[in-house]
Amino acid sequence: MRTAHTLRTCLVTVFAAGCLASAQDARDPLPSWNDTASRRAIVDFVTTVTRAGSPDFVPVSDRIATFDNDGTLWGEQPVYVQLAFAFDRVKTLASQHPDWKQTQPFKGVLEGDMKAVAATGEKGLVDIIVTTHAGNTTEEFEKIVRDWIGSARHPTTKRLYTEMVYQPMLEVLAYLRANGFKTFIVSGGGVEFMRPWTERVYGVPPEQVIGSRAQVKYEHRDGRPVLLRLPDVDFVDNEAGKPIGIHQAIGRRPIAAFGNSDGDFEMLEWTTSGRSPRLGLIVHHTDAAREWAYDRASRIGTLSRALDEAPTHGWTVVNMQRDWKVIYPFQK
Amino acid sequence: MRTAHTLRTCLVTVFAAGCLASAQDARDPLPSWNDTASRRAIVDFVTTVTRAGSPDFVPVSDRIATFDNDGTLWGEQPVYVQLAFAFDRVKTLASQHPDWKQTQPFKGVLEGDMKAVAATGEKGLVDIIVTTHAGNTTEEFEKIVRDWIGSARHPTTKRLYTEMVYQPMLEVLAYLRANGFKTFIVSGGGVEFMRPWTERVYGVPPEQVIGSRAQVKYEHRDGRPVLLRLPDVDFVDNEAGKPIGIHQAIGRRPIAAFGNSDGDFEMLEWTTSGRSPRLGLIVHHTDAAREWAYDRASRIGTLSRALDEAPTHGWTVVNMQRDWKVIYPFQK
Repeated sequence: MRTAHTLRTCLVTVFAAGCLASAQDARDPLPSWNDTASRRAIVDFVTTVTRAGSPDFVPVSDRIATFDNDGTLWGEQPVYVQLAFAFDRVKTLASQHPDWKQTQPFKGVLEGDMKAVAATGEKGLVDIIVTTHAGNTTEEFEKIVRDWIGSARHPTTKRLYTEMVYQPMLEVLAYLRANGFKTFIVSGGGVEFMRPWTERVYGVPPEQVIGSRAQVKYEHRDGRPVLLRLPDVDFVDNEAGKPIGIHQAIGRRPIAAFGNSDGDFEMLEWTTSGRSPRLGLIVHHTDAAREWAYDRASRIGTLSRALDEAPTHGWTVVNMQRDWKVIYPFQK
Repeated sequence: MRTAHTLRTCLVTVFAAGCLASAQDARDPLPSWNDTASRRAIVDFVTTVTRAGSPDFVPVSDRIATFDNDGTLWGEQPVYVQLAFAFDRVKTLASQHPDWKQTQPFKGVLEGDMKAVAATGEKGLVDIIVTTHAGNTTEEFEKIVRDWIGSARHPTTKRLYTEMVYQPMLEVLAYLRANGFKTFIVSGGGVEFMRPWTERVYGVPPEQVIGSRAQVKYEHRDGRPVLLRLPDVDFVDNEAGKPIGIHQAIGRRPIAAFGNSDGDFEMLEWTTSGRSPRLGLIVHHTDAAREWAYDRASRIGTLSRALDEAPTHGWTVVNMQRDWKVIYPFQK
C-alpha cells in the first residue's frame, strides 16, 4: 500500500518536473534566438556533451556553467544597477550624514550632478558602494535590497530592473538546466546584492551565486548572533578574481562560461582551456535601437581584449542585434 | 515516439533514483541508530519541517544542513587526517629540503619524534601544513590528495581513512537528502583536501564543501592558465569563521547543523538561533572501546563550552557508545 502510494507520488512528480522539461525540449528550447552561428554553437555544444556513449560525453556532475550578470544576464547601462541602488542609498541615508552635502562624491549624488560624481573616478564609486553597503546586519541588508529591487525603476525605460533581463539568456539558463547543468552566476557585483532575487528571476539559488563581497563580523545583538557588514572589501570577483571565486566556491572547472566584457576574460579563458569540449560565449552589445551599442570605448562593460582574442580561443560572439529576436521578456 | 522514449527514460530514472530512495524510507532510514532520544530528535525534526500544511513546514529551497567533518563525519584521532597527510608530504618532499633534517618541526616529523613536533605548538603545525600544501597548481594538488587518500592507512586500525567514516552519520546525510535537504560540509580542514573524495564517500559534491583555504594566484604555465597554491592562508573556517564561511558560500542560514567540538559552537549557535524549528547536534566521543573517548581535555576536537551550553540551546548530544549500534560501515 505504502509502496503503491509512493510510486504514484513519484510518477506525478516526474510528470510535473522531469518529463515536462523533456517534453518542452521537443519544442524549440531557444525560441528567442535567430538561427545563426551563435545559436548553433550553443546547441551543438549541449548536444555533444550530453550524447551518451560519445567520447565527448560529460557526466552530469561535471556540467557546470557560469554566467556573468551585468551586461550578460541583465542590462548595465547607463550605470550598473548596483550603482543606482547605491545612489538611492545615499539619498536615503543623507539625513544621518550632514557632511555629505559638502563632500564629493556624495554631494554630486545628492545634487544629481553625475559629472561631479564621475570626476571622483573609481575611488569615488568604491567610496559610495562601501559606505552605503556597510553597517547593517546581513539580514537587514537583504531586506533593503529586496525592497529596493521590488520597486526601483530604470531611468529611461521606467521598467523594474528585474524586467530588463535578457530573454534569450533566460532560455539558455533553462536549456542548460534541462540538460543536467548546474548554473552559477559569477559576477563582479556584490553577492549580497544579487542573492535576494536571483532564484526568482533566473532560477539560480543563493548558493550558486558568486560575487564580490564585503567583510562581515560575527557578533551578538540582543542576545542573538548576527553577521555585521563592515566597510571593508573582502573579495573582488572580477578579472583574475573570477576563476579564483569559481575555485573557492565550486572547486571544479566549468565547461561553459558566458560573459560580455574584459572583466570576464579570465573566466572564459579558465573555462575554455580545460580538456574536453567547452563553450565560451560573449554577449556583444550591438543594438542601439533595442538596447545599447557599446564595447571598446565604454567605461561600463568595456569589451576590447576579449573581443580581439575571441577567435583565437574559439569563443562565440553573440551579435545582439542579429542573433536575438527579442531582448526582454516583456517583448515576447 | 520521442515522447514515449522520454517517458520510458524518466520512469527508469525514477525507479533507479527517486522511488528507490522513497522505498528505502519505508524501511528504517537510520538502521545504525539505537532508539534513543538522539535518534528521535533527528526524526522528529525532519518529520516536522517536511509535513505539508504544518506551520513549521520548510520549503525544499530552505532545507540546508551543514556538517563538520573531522570528528563528526570521520575520525580525528590520534591526529587530524590532514595532519597525517602533511607528515607524509614532509617525508616525500624532504629530499628537496635538506635543511629540514636540522629544523623543527620538520626534523621531528622525519625522525618520527612526535614530542618534538608537538613542542613547536600550533605554530609548528601551521608551518607544516602551509609548507607542504603550497607550490602546486590546484590540479596537481588534487591529484596528490586523491593518490594519498586512496592508499594511506590509519596507524592503528590499518584501514583506509575513508573507511573510518561514521555509518550512523552517513545515514543521517542520506536521510536528510531523501527529505529534500541540500547537505554541506563546513570544516576547519582544508577545502582542497576534502573535495577530491567527499562526493564518493559522503555524496557531497565539491561545490557543497566549505573549508579553510590557501590563497591562490591565477597565472600561466606553458600557455595554459593555472591556479597556483600560495603559502598563505586565505580563510580559516573554524569557530566564528564557520557562520562566515556559510554566509560566503551558501548565503542563507542552515536549519540543521552537526558538529563535535567547540570549533562548531558558532555554527550551531548561528543555525539554531534562526526562527522556525532547528536541529543542532553534537557527536560526543564516548566510546573508548569502539572508537575514542575524549572531550574537554583533548587537544584534538576539544568539546567543553558547547557541551556545557548544549541544554540551553536545545542541542542534541549524541552519546556515541549508547546511541550508535555500529561506528564504521565495515562493522555493519
